[in-house]
Amino acid sequence: MTTKYLLSEDQIPRAWYNILADLRSPPAPVLHPGTKQPVTPDDLAPLFPMALIEQEMSPEREIAIPDAIRGALALWRPTPLHRAQRFERALGTRSHIYYKYEGVSPPGSHKPNTAVAQAYYNAQAGVRRLATETGAGQWGSSLAFAGALFGLKVTVYMVKVSYEQKPYRRSMMHAWGAEVFASPSDRTQAGRSILAKDPSSSGSLGMAISEAVEVVIGCHGGGSNFSGIALPFARDKLHGKEVRLLAAEPTSCPSLTKGRYAFDFGDTVGMTPLVKMFTLGHEFMPPSIHAGGLRYHGAAPLVSKLLDEKIIEAVAYPQRACFDAAVTFARSEGIIAAPETSHAIKAAIEEAKRADQEGRTRVILFNLSGHGHFDLGAYDAYFAGKLEDFDYPQEAVERSLRSLPAVAM
Amino acid sequence: MTTKYLLSEDQIPRAWYNILADLRSPPAPVLHPGTKQPVTPDDLAPLFPMALIEQEMSPEREIAIPDAIRGALALWRPTPLHRAQRFERALGTRSHIYYKYEGVSPPGSHKPNTAVAQAYYNAQAGVRRLATETGAGQWGSSLAFAGALFGLKVTVYMVKVSYEQKPYRRSMMHAWGAEVFASPSDRTQAGRSILAKDPSSSGSLGMAISEAVEVVIGCHGGGSNFSGIALPFARDKLHGKEVRLLAAEPTSCPSLTKGRYAFDFGDTVGMTPLVKMFTLGHEFMPPSIHAGGLRYHGAAPLVSKLLDEKIIEAVAYPQRACFDAAVTFARSEGIIAAPETSHAIKAAIEEAKRADQEGRTRVILFNLSGHGHFDLGAYDAYFAGKLEDFDYPQEAVERSLRSLPAVAM
Repeated sequence: MTTKYLLSEDQIPRAWYNILADLRSPPAPVLHPGTKQPVTPDDLAPLFPMALIEQEMSPEREIAIPDAIRGALALWRPTPLHRAQRFERALGTRSHIYYKYEGVSPPGSHKPNTAVAQAYYNAQAGVRRLATETGAGQWGSSLAFAGALFGLKVTVYMVKVSYEQKPYRRSMMHAWGAEVFASPSDRTQAGRSILAKDPSSSGSLGMAISEAVEVVIGCHGGGSNFSGIALPFARDKLHGKEVRLLAAEPTSCPSLTKGRYAFDFGDTVGMTPLVKMFTLGHEFMPPSIHAGGLRYHGAAPLVSKLLDEKIIEAVAYPQRACFDAAVTFARSEGIIAAPETSHAIKAAIEEAKRADQEGRTRVILFNLSGHGHFDLGAYDAYFAGKLEDFDYPQEAVERSLRSLPAVAM
Repeated sequence: MTTKYLLSEDQIPRAWYNILADLRSPPAPVLHPGTKQPVTPDDLAPLFPMALIEQEMSPEREIAIPDAIRGALALWRPTPLHRAQRFERALGTRSHIYYKYEGVSPPGSHKPNTAVAQAYYNAQAGVRRLATETGAGQWGSSLAFAGALFGLKVTVYMVKVSYEQKPYRRSMMHAWGAEVFASPSDRTQAGRSILAKDPSSSGSLGMAISEAVEVVIGCHGGGSNFSGIALPFARDKLHGKEVRLLAAEPTSCPSLTKGRYAFDFGDTVGMTPLVKMFTLGHEFMPPSIHAGGLRYHGAAPLVSKLLDEKIIEAVAYPQRACFDAAVTFARSEGIIAAPETSHAIKAAIEEAKRADQEGRTRVILFNLSGHGHFDLGAYDAYFAGKLEDFDYPQEAVERSLRSLPAVAM
């Protein structure tokens, strides 16, 4: 029988975990794009309500979650944790593989975990309208959903290619009352700023697992779903527990595996604050793979710092191998994963294979960050043999890195 | 805070509830289409494995669920039961409204509850390939999913209009390894036969509710999701408990509210066995509303018998009013419901309004039988003002009923 772990509603975390409190040294400050000096709360005030700015800069280990947010999260959380026994059998592995399923949220991924919080704090601060951008559509639909819950008008600028490829993501946002416009560029300042600061809120996952987890895997684009699953385990690791934390990214956009740890802009035109992160250079243009949510030139500053300190590791896979993995998973466990998520499934398979070759039985956990109901066109392309793999050679990385800004720090 | 009720995995029912054991009189027998005499198990053997035929004819109140089926159901069950407090506030009602959410299953509705069982018994009987038809695509994708779990090849004939309107339902079936063909008609014998015998398997729902439920609502097409939510409460009602059981159907296909209780064919051309049911006549052609799963000329024989004995009631609503209701629900509770399900939401709103007018506080439960991720084109049409309402006047019903076969019983 499949083993499924479900916490009760009163076990939804009462606080967000802030890994800053457990790091050996603070992360690099965020720099003002003009002065290239550390930004102050006042610099951010035009963009964000003060409660969010204070949270962003807080040194506290735990930040209390307001009841109104817990109430909204309870619409779909706690999300289930599954032991993937059919998948283990399909692979013929002796390792134990677990996945956390975030696709049960109304927008279908982990994104509303933070969208609900951001909408709440904005509503509290008297904001009446939010504008954002969205790449694959997950973030835009999550903010549209959160806006409906807290009475905010939401305007979404959706990357034109996704706007056309995924009309139903757009319809979903309309259903929640948001306005959606096709955008010629996903590089608006407001959108990127929100996308870059997706806080983690899955602090209670570890408690649900009675076995010692040895490998934790999340796919990696900007860092939000990976952080959600991995940061609570990073805390354990920082306190001495043996656990590997693995970020799986596409070979076509290898910010963690081939990028440089440097100050860079969050956007292409250089309007956002400068943050120290693993980056391919802000002028990097990723190819049009189907995992639209992973097509970002950089990585979240916290994830970057953890990688730089070797607390986490990173691997990259081409998209066809990831679809192979996702189809194996769909035919054994039933859930059709988002293309982004397929990278985590591929990494889980590779970790299980390696453990088998070493004659070991590992416990592997990955984040099934979203379903693929709006990405089935990509599955069609895969079955039709029309998916291409992209590699990003080192010389192209070097060329793209020339766009890095000169920073004295 | 939203109140969500989740049973634990070991509370998944160990037996299916068979309401035949509690009925005052047995339902009318199923008749052979040629001889018009009651069918025997041997007549059904070419179509179904004997284990399913025995179950269909069993007088036992409880039928044990094999462990392999419980294991597969545990991939997504128990499904959550929610108190819809935001929806209650949006309506301004004093009644308590609950919904059971079946959209968390991998295919996105209640249909895999029976698809898994049917695939299992066929696999046990040595069947290697299943052929079926699907209307809106929910059933086809559920059987494709179930086939993947038990190693069966599945071939799906999908109604051409849905095949074209919902290409992603098709992709979903491909992802699980099924073949899908557009069908000029949804009237193949094999498909209808399976569709007509969707057993109920939500026997444990009542246990999760500590308050006395007074109104139970399901949308109604062929009868599967309505039966799943209502039959356990029908048992309570048959044993003296006061509870209303309400089937909500579209005005465009009003088999329960305007049909006749008579022997009729399950298919349009008259190949299937004859069953006694509420029917509009097997030559009835429903208009192309978006709730494709509710476009069926008849009703399940058990549901029909319960209606004839006034154990359940039926109401009909036009589709625009149902979309109004679904949008109110999406903006308060977050879940975007399937068009079929919107009929149950509409009925819940009407029941709450009536209770408020009477100065009463009712407890209302409805089955949120599936999400609308593959039906967002219908929401687009609704927002664009392009949805039409269809009524089916009594004279048209009379004309259609002339196709009823002459039966001596």
